[in-house]
Amino acid sequence: MTYCIGILVRDGLVMIADTRTNAGVDNISQYKKLRLFGEDGDRFIAIASAGSLSTTQAAIHRMRQGVLNPETGELDTLENALDIFTAALACGRAVQAARSTMEGLQQSGVNFDATLLVGGSIGGEKTRLFLVYSQGNIIECGQDTPFLQIGELKYGKPILDRALTYDTSLGDAIKIGLLSFDATMRSNLAVYHPLDLVVARSGQTRAELVKRIEQDDEYFVDLSNRWSDALSQAAADIPPPPYKELQDLFG
Amino acid sequence: MTYCIGILVRDGLVMIADTRTNAGVDNISQYKKLRLFGEDGDRFIAIASAGSLSTTQAAIHRMRQGVLNPETGELDTLENALDIFTAALACGRAVQAARSTMEGLQQSGVNFDATLLVGGSIGGEKTRLFLVYSQGNIIECGQDTPFLQIGELKYGKPILDRALTYDTSLGDAIKIGLLSFDATMRSNLAVYHPLDLVVARSGQTRAELVKRIEQDDEYFVDLSNRWSDALSQAAADIPPPPYKELQDLFG
Repeated sequence: MTYCIGILVRDGLVMIADTRTNAGVDNISQYKKLRLFGEDGDRFIAIASAGSLSTTQAAIHRMRQGVLNPETGELDTLENALDIFTAALACGRAVQAARSTMEGLQQSGVNFDATLLVGGSIGGEKTRLFLVYSQGNIIECGQDTPFLQIGELKYGKPILDRALTYDTSLGDAIKIGLLSFDATMRSNLAVYHPLDLVVARSGQTRAELVKRIEQDDEYFVDLSNRWSDALSQAAADIPPPPYKELQDLFG
Repeated sequence: MTYCIGILVRDGLVMIADTRTNAGVDNISQYKKLRLFGEDGDRFIAIASAGSLSTTQAAIHRMRQGVLNPETGELDTLENALDIFTAALACGRAVQAARSTMEGLQQSGVNFDATLLVGGSIGGEKTRLFLVYSQGNIIECGQDTPFLQIGELKYGKPILDRALTYDTSLGDAIKIGLLSFDATMRSNLAVYHPLDLVVARSGQTRAELVKRIEQDDEYFVDLSNRWSDALSQAAADIPPPPYKELQDLFG
């Protein structure tokens, strides 16, 4: 399993990915799922991946080699794409191509689906964020719901739904993203530390922060404990149900 | 979609189910998914259902008519089962039988899976709670994880994982159960009011409380607002990430 978030607020982009993969519950490994490209030049592109490791690795390999653009007849790569939208479209073709080579294997019942988050900026354009579906189509993150998730997304979605808006500061977006991971890791063992975090200001072609957050990261442990305590306290502070039949049911 | 929780604490049982069903997003209806049986006699049995409405209705019908017990050659019903474990096993056979009549239809690609929560007490035995899988097998709720969920379970699981223990009072169990529904309804439109709630003390053969909670239920609305406010406040109270690159990223 995997969990990745991309958060796109007014000030920029936050992407977080875990590093646990598993083939069944008895075969657990650690793989980097957040990759950065073109950081030193005119572009910053971050790609997070969920789903079949075979498919995502093959898709990334294709993006490095170049993916045929049927409209121009040229090979699109992350290095030559003129804007981040074009790069995301090319990632979609790469995923589609990677999956199609595995169709024979799919008869064995293995799922080769894979999804990507692609975020960044090329040449100083406003930073954008996309979700690339397994079928190769893409959607762009909008201001009304300023985040996209892939992988094990449900446990960590409520806090994003409640707390995140397009006007949330980049720093608070990191905090809320980490709270979403905390919720997910508590309920699903297949999502786990270390987490990879990248932060980029809008329009910038370099990352502001690239950080690996280990299991014993002081800030994360403190955040998790404070959150647990606050939730328990918040639940305790809510008045008991007023249903009169229940007057003596409270401990 | 559907969401149902069964919570079994030391003092008794809380079960909550929503009432929304949908065939696609453009065909939404309201159906009762929490049914009570035998309340006036020597038994209290509550059954919550998720999954195919065809399968769950057929399974309940079979439980009323009687399901063949292959060991005794008799027909088991909810009215004649000697204990709640036997009743849950019979529910499993009823689900299995209901599904097997639909196997021809499954070739059309429709999913006829269904799961049940079966809780209660027969003849004053300690109240127990079971999950009946679509294949007919059952598991019993234990003290280490004092709840079972069916349907759209992930959004509402983190609060249960954090806040619920076997020693939680029945009243607090209701509160935590409703918070779990609040999280789910915020993130998935296919789970919605009214909610059906039943509470029974352990060993009792009648319900302590049976209540339908409508969308404008004063207590639920207040609980939902307080929870939202408390979560926002709790997130705001957590210190910002200490990563020095980010000192000016906070709004």
